[in-house]
Amino acid sequence: MSTRMVGKPSLTLTRRYRFSSSHRLHSPALSLDENQSTYGRCNNPYGHGHNYVLEVSVSGPVDPNTGRVAALEDLDNLVRASVLAVYDGKDMNADIDSFLGGVVPTTENVAQDIRQRLSTHWIADERNWAHTAVPPSLAGVRIYETRKNIFDI
Amino acid sequence: MSTRMVGKPSLTLTRRYRFSSSHRLHSPALSLDENQSTYGRCNNPYGHGHNYVLEVSVSGPVDPNTGRVAALEDLDNLVRASVLAVYDGKDMNADIDSFLGGVVPTTENVAQDIRQRLSTHWIADERNWAHTAVPPSLAGVRIYETRKNIFDI
Amino acid sequence: MSTRMVGKPSLTLTRRYRFSSSHRLHSPALSLDENQSTYGRCNNPYGHGHNYVLEVSVSGPVDPNTGRVAALEDLDNLVRASVLAVYDGKDMNADIDSFLGGVVPTTENVAQDIRQRLSTHWIADERNWAHTAVPPSLAGVRIYETRKNIFDI
Amino acid sequence: MSTRMVGKPSLTLTRRYRFSSSHRLHSPALSLDENQSTYGRCNNPYGHGHNYVLEVSVSGPVDPNTGRVAALEDLDNLVRASVLAVYDGKDMNADIDSFLGGVVPTTENVAQDIRQRLSTHWIADERNWAHTAVPPSLAGVRIYETRKNIFDI
Amino acid sequence: MSTRMVGKPSLTLTRRYRFSSSHRLHSPALSLDENQSTYGRCNNPYGHGHNYVLEVSVSGPVDPNTGRVAALEDLDNLVRASVLAVYDGKDMNADIDSFLGGVVPTTENVAQDIRQRLSTHWIADERNWAHTAVPPSLAGVRIYETRKNIFDI
Amino acid sequence: MSTRMVGKPSLTLTRRYRFSSSHRLHSPALSLDENQSTYGRCNNPYGHGHNYVLEVSVSGPVDPNTGRVAALEDLDNLVRASVLAVYDGKDMNADIDSFLGGVVPTTENVAQDIRQRLSTHWIADERNWAHTAVPPSLAGVRIYETRKNIFDI
Repeated sequence: MSTRMVGKPSLTLTRRYRFSSSHRLHSPALSLDENQSTYGRCNNPYGHGHNYVLEVSVSGPVDPNTGRVAALEDLDNLVRASVLAVYDGKDMNADIDSFLGGVVPTTENVAQDIRQRLSTHWIADERNWAHTAVPPSLAGVRIYETRKNIFDI
Repeated sequence: MSTRMVGKPSLTLTRRYRFSSSHRLHSPALSLDENQSTYGRCNNPYGHGHNYVLEVSVSGPVDPNTGRVAALEDLDNLVRASVLAVYDGKDMNADIDSFLGGVVPTTENVAQDIRQRLSTHWIADERNWAHTAVPPSLAGVRIYETRKNIFDI
Repeated sequence: MSTRMVGKPSLTLTRRYRFSSSHRLHSPALSLDENQSTYGRCNNPYGHGHNYVLEVSVSGPVDPNTGRVAALEDLDNLVRASVLAVYDGKDMNADIDSFLGGVVPTTENVAQDIRQRLSTHWIADERNWAHTAVPPSLAGVRIYETRKNIFDI
Repeated sequence: MSTRMVGKPSLTLTRRYRFSSSHRLHSPALSLDENQSTYGRCNNPYGHGHNYVLEVSVSGPVDPNTGRVAALEDLDNLVRASVLAVYDGKDMNADIDSFLGGVVPTTENVAQDIRQRLSTHWIADERNWAHTAVPPSLAGVRIYETRKNIFDI
Repeated sequence: MSTRMVGKPSLTLTRRYRFSSSHRLHSPALSLDENQSTYGRCNNPYGHGHNYVLEVSVSGPVDPNTGRVAALEDLDNLVRASVLAVYDGKDMNADIDSFLGGVVPTTENVAQDIRQRLSTHWIADERNWAHTAVPPSLAGVRIYETRKNIFDI
Repeated sequence: MSTRMVGKPSLTLTRRYRFSSSHRLHSPALSLDENQSTYGRCNNPYGHGHNYVLEVSVSGPVDPNTGRVAALEDLDNLVRASVLAVYDGKDMNADIDSFLGGVVPTTENVAQDIRQRLSTHWIADERNWAHTAVPPSLAGVRIYETRKNIFDI
């Protein structure tokens, strides 16, 4: 095999996922008036929802046998189990334990929650990377709440 | 003024709006099992949500004085009052009267509801078209529930 | 259930799919020079490829029990079996029988082939619509070869 | 060659182009106040500009020798000479004769002007279709002024 | 309130805005021929225009009370007053003081001008952040002149 | 000329290109079964293809005479000659020397190959930057294989 790819810097793969959820923005640390002025129509008692776009970025060397940074099958399985199964088709306030105790499901907090869910399961369970020679590192999480609001962590 | 635009066929303007809502798909005409098999994860008891894109198309002659089919100000006011104020930041099942009586808020039914709301207020109240010489006709309503599901009526 | 949806006009659902294929544009009815001047770099002997976007539009009445024009499960199964299984991840010239006999896999011919595949299997096999009360009609097929070239049939 | 494509209905090709222009919306048929209230910030004396997207749709039978509705080379040459050379990188009010006499360069009037320019040159000069067996008909013109404002004629 | 969000790294919010402007690229430091060869059709005497997309990125800790990096209301007000009011619906060469003295309104120079306008007003006036506990830092400015030309500073 | 742009930090220009290619993912280092399980339908013997989007980012100071980081003409010529002429309308496995020796044309390897082609020709031939005062540095290469798979190097 050609050796011209040897010694190259590591590469980043970003994989895009989508999920649809509903939420209500309401903080127990704020008064009713403060909630209304802070969140506006997003404080609507019955909630509303979004089509979220999630981008998960992973970095690492390119496996010379497969030409891949990571097996997409492994990455997809990990993201599906850790994030999509939790968020897709759900109401964040009622269905997701991270937000049951009063943490407001702003997309800032959602981004932190997703990053933590991914980090927790990343290397801990080696079955996550059954088809990948060297598990990549988690390089970043980006969430689009709408076309206008984007969050990176 | 030049007369070269005289006698041209009518023209269609499509204006794009966005709203974010939540809904739960559950029909009182179906059993629990049928609801689950019909709507899948969209039957989640606490709902989920979407960023909807709404396109409203209007047709008519071009006003020779303004070069416009319709004043955007008029069209925007009508759509905001008739549709966006009803749907944006809301939960369809709990907040919108059209769906309180058991009509399932599928996007098919949402499209029909929005078309009816627009039609009802279109010409009835002449204040809707204060800045438009000849009110255009409603040529079509298109809704994108997600990038993959599009509805025309 | 509310009766306000009764008597509405039929509605069109457009569902978007994607597939990736390769092809070579070369017509046995043309000389080598004519092939080169007609297809330019698309006449490259070893081919090239595209990410195609396929939109399938279906029309019909809205089922009052489900609020749906068609069960997405049914439509997806039909398109997957009739089109995606044939086209996705394939080389049109070598893998698809429609193009083995000299028909050039231009997107015009691909569009006609896909429309015919869908039409042939639409109602013929009633298992296609196991979850849909009244099978919708096929209202149109649209293919994006690239962002700049779009085909409707 | 296979005959399975024989007798199919005609097909529509839509080809997408882009141009960047500036304009000022100001009508000689209106007073200064009316101009201001009609066009708002688009009445700014020094103008402003847009990236326009133009879609030209042509319909016709598929040539059995080439598998094409029209040679892209022919269509591109015609649109470049008739439209893009006139509009791209230009100020509509100062550079385009259609708007020198007081016709306001709203996108409604731009759409009518572009449709007329295309129609005038379509079949008149047979050199326009040197590589196309049967010149297609002009099926439609669509212009996106912005993502939110779309015009069809 | 849950403490599981404590100690997380800072987060970046990117908010997307749009404005439409016209400009002419012509440098007083270059001869007429050099201007023509440097800017091509963008040197057109009467100018042309674009729909610009502006992304403003801000970084900081997530406020535990609101779950927000910054109040969108504050950020929007600041960007509207400092940038959109200056650029939207305007001709850069004639309407914006930054370009009256011979600085060419290339998007490179526009990006630098917008970054400076934002920086100047960022913390200086505490009213900019009336609804935000800890004003975030300005992490970056990105401008899309067209889909093909993107500028980061 | 104004001196207000003096001393500003360097700026990054990202320019977007597109190319269409076909490829087959098959590694000589893997068995037939391993190839099938690693690449799935992308292991199809006759290949398939994609519309790739390539973003080339360059960084440097803004030339005070032209207001530009780089002459687009120079950058376009370099990318066309070094990358697009090699990749566009081609089959990677059969047409591109980098992949003739067994390197699998995954988009990871394509990204590395494109980065190397650009780096090799960047400053070596001064004719590449005939219209640019100070050649910019190559800040990054990004490739979209599909909307869901993005690669940065």
